[in-house]
Amino acid sequence: MQRIHHPRKEQIHLAGVLDSLSDPTRLEIVLRLDTLGEATCAEFLDACSKTNLTYHLRRLREAGVTRVSPVGTQRFISLRRKDLDTRFPGLLEMIIGFARDAASADT
Amino acid sequence: MQRIHHPRKEQIHLAGVLDSLSDPTRLEIVLRLDTLGEATCAEFLDACSKTNLTYHLRRLREAGVTRVSPVGTQRFISLRRKDLDTRFPGLLEMIIGFARDAASADT
Repeated sequence: MQRIHHPRKEQIHLAGVLDSLSDPTRLEIVLRLDTLGEATCAEFLDACSKTNLTYHLRRLREAGVTRVSPVGTQRFISLRRKDLDTRFPGLLEMIIGFARDAASADT
Repeated sequence: MQRIHHPRKEQIHLAGVLDSLSDPTRLEIVLRLDTLGEATCAEFLDACSKTNLTYHLRRLREAGVTRVSPVGTQRFISLRRKDLDTRFPGLLEMIIGFARDAASADT
């Protein structure tokens, strides 16, 4: 199976994390991962097209926001909370909180 | 004089703010504004080319992160701290703190 690249913790940069979270679809993916803990791609297929989903999931993984773990033929996606909290304490939780408020206000 | 457009406070969105701060040059501009309070474009001319500077300053203004105030023939730029803190309490300060840590680590 193809190796899935993840940046090391010290390679996670502020601009990259903010960039990866600067899109409504990616924020929605992060909100769902926050709720679910971990999920397969299938969980997000209603959020955008499959091609776009592949792109958005790659952006989150490359920024160091998510980890993709292959289990058998499936890939499980989760937030890299501990690594992000070591690099930027409180940032992910704060952004998730504001994104959740905005999502509630929209519905 | 041409009217300078700024989004109203309630038009400031999380994804837009994060996007505007997801670039090292724009983060540097924000750090300088944090230190200086307000500044003219001349203050940032060493950070990038004039064309790029115009672009980066526009991105920050359009996201609602900065305000541009014409005074005579000059334009003074400042952070919209109060508006940002009403919309996303603590977010700007947190990001400025991490950006400052990263800038110190680089020097």
